[in-house]
Amino acid sequence: MRILSGIQPSGKLHIGNYFGAMRQHLAMQHDNEAYYFIAEYHALTSNPDPEKLHENVFGVAADYLALGLEPEKTVFWRQSDVPEVVELEWILSCITPVGLMQRCVSYKDKVAQGLSPNHGLFSYPLLQVADILAFDSELVPVGADQKQHIEITRDIAMRFNNIYGETFVIPKDHIVESVAVVPGTDGRKMSKSYDNTIQIFEPEKQMRKKVMRIQTDSTPVEEPKDPDKCNVFALLKLFADESELADWDSRYRSGGMGYGDAKKRLAELMVEYFRPYRQRREELAADHDYLRKVLKDGAERARAQARKTLERARLAVGLRP
Amino acid sequence: MRILSGIQPSGKLHIGNYFGAMRQHLAMQHDNEAYYFIAEYHALTSNPDPEKLHENVFGVAADYLALGLEPEKTVFWRQSDVPEVVELEWILSCITPVGLMQRCVSYKDKVAQGLSPNHGLFSYPLLQVADILAFDSELVPVGADQKQHIEITRDIAMRFNNIYGETFVIPKDHIVESVAVVPGTDGRKMSKSYDNTIQIFEPEKQMRKKVMRIQTDSTPVEEPKDPDKCNVFALLKLFADESELADWDSRYRSGGMGYGDAKKRLAELMVEYFRPYRQRREELAADHDYLRKVLKDGAERARAQARKTLERARLAVGLRP
Repeated sequence: MRILSGIQPSGKLHIGNYFGAMRQHLAMQHDNEAYYFIAEYHALTSNPDPEKLHENVFGVAADYLALGLEPEKTVFWRQSDVPEVVELEWILSCITPVGLMQRCVSYKDKVAQGLSPNHGLFSYPLLQVADILAFDSELVPVGADQKQHIEITRDIAMRFNNIYGETFVIPKDHIVESVAVVPGTDGRKMSKSYDNTIQIFEPEKQMRKKVMRIQTDSTPVEEPKDPDKCNVFALLKLFADESELADWDSRYRSGGMGYGDAKKRLAELMVEYFRPYRQRREELAADHDYLRKVLKDGAERARAQARKTLERARLAVGLRP
Repeated sequence: MRILSGIQPSGKLHIGNYFGAMRQHLAMQHDNEAYYFIAEYHALTSNPDPEKLHENVFGVAADYLALGLEPEKTVFWRQSDVPEVVELEWILSCITPVGLMQRCVSYKDKVAQGLSPNHGLFSYPLLQVADILAFDSELVPVGADQKQHIEITRDIAMRFNNIYGETFVIPKDHIVESVAVVPGTDGRKMSKSYDNTIQIFEPEKQMRKKVMRIQTDSTPVEEPKDPDKCNVFALLKLFADESELADWDSRYRSGGMGYGDAKKRLAELMVEYFRPYRQRREELAADHDYLRKVLKDGAERARAQARKTLERARLAVGLRP
């Protein structure tokens, strides 16, 4: 299957991102034809600092490559290297009712939060539609919050095909279920906006410190504890193998174990888990020339596909030579 | 001065178009650096029939070249050959408040007329902004109805320059005053939507017929007539020289002249006026290869300029290599 996913260049990735979606996306590249891009045009809708945006683009490229994205197989590029999607967006916008855009929940939510919206924010689901259609994507792995955008994509693609004849592949969504909810250090869902994250590529010392600071209840050491209500245990589930996990489960329940012990082991496992990736990431981050080359190669492959689709759409609406 | 104007490929031009704006635009190319483009992306907002759009693009190219557009001097191209403007539009959309777009009168008018708007129609003033800014336009000749869009262009350009540093030239508007109101055959303003037009390149016989059908009042031949209230006289003003016009003025006022005489002379003058253009138009319309070549040459020159501006904007917002 041809799958597509956009990656926001929005700063340092945390282990909530990793277990929430990245790991699944990276796994999908083996049995699929994956198209993954760094969504710079989308990032502009939140008016990032230009220096920071530039830094984050290379940062996120290094992250994904370090964590296992295979650029020989998976097409991996910077969105702004394939401007065909913006042209396609314009063509699609002319058959998209304004009302459809106004009903986008993600937009309504942001406005409800008191954000004074820019036109890019209003249009961004339509750019997403163009992203998806430009690459003849068959499957789009998304979180549940993005399901509506895939529905809109299907609507618009079918409408276009109806009016102008078969032009676009109609994609399906694929809701990526998180393996588990990943709690942050304060017990709420791990999220940058709660400032409760543990970053994947945090310096090891700091990673350990953050783990030791994870909030737990005040049950004394000697008393039995409920692993299912413990943030540390929830994170252990992601890193420990089954037999070790069973062991921790019984130590929790039998009493005589302090949370500190569990935390120390969690920190150990976490550091170990990411250690090989971390080394690779450091090499990559220091080699912008290599990152540039990978992204340029990807852009060429992506562009070749986008040009074909755009050409079909252009001819269909009457933009003919 | 660098001036820019977009030409809608919306079908056959009439003499209201000609005296209302085209003639002024064509005159301006001599003392200015003119950038004139066929606004295909804009045309898509009204969902034209694809065949018709294609036909109209070549039609309007032949019209303008026949009427005196000088492609060696003036940069003349098809909008869709320079997709850089759509990319620039996206960048600009991210600093443009949605509210600013909602206040666009042209959009509000269309919605008030009961049109169910598409997203392209909502965004089109922003594409116009990108058109203008992409070519470092200094002056934009527009009708009074488009004045607001130039104000928006200035707003957005200044806002961008404030946030990201000097990037765009701030354009001025230049309201093109019609030499005279051009009445249609029914006396209302000549307009396609009133179906009261006389086309510039109408077959001569049909042009004469239409002139003979211009509505006049029922004052008998022998009685004096008021030239200032006569549609035929209003049109004579556009074609007759001063001495002939003075002559008609006195014939109207002294009585004994029938409207038929004035119409016959008007038809004569009109046919004569456009005859050389008509011959040239026929040659051009039959030579799509030539039209293609002219438009491609223009697109190359236009694109070179648009690329420079887009590159400045890309670097400013952080889309850096």
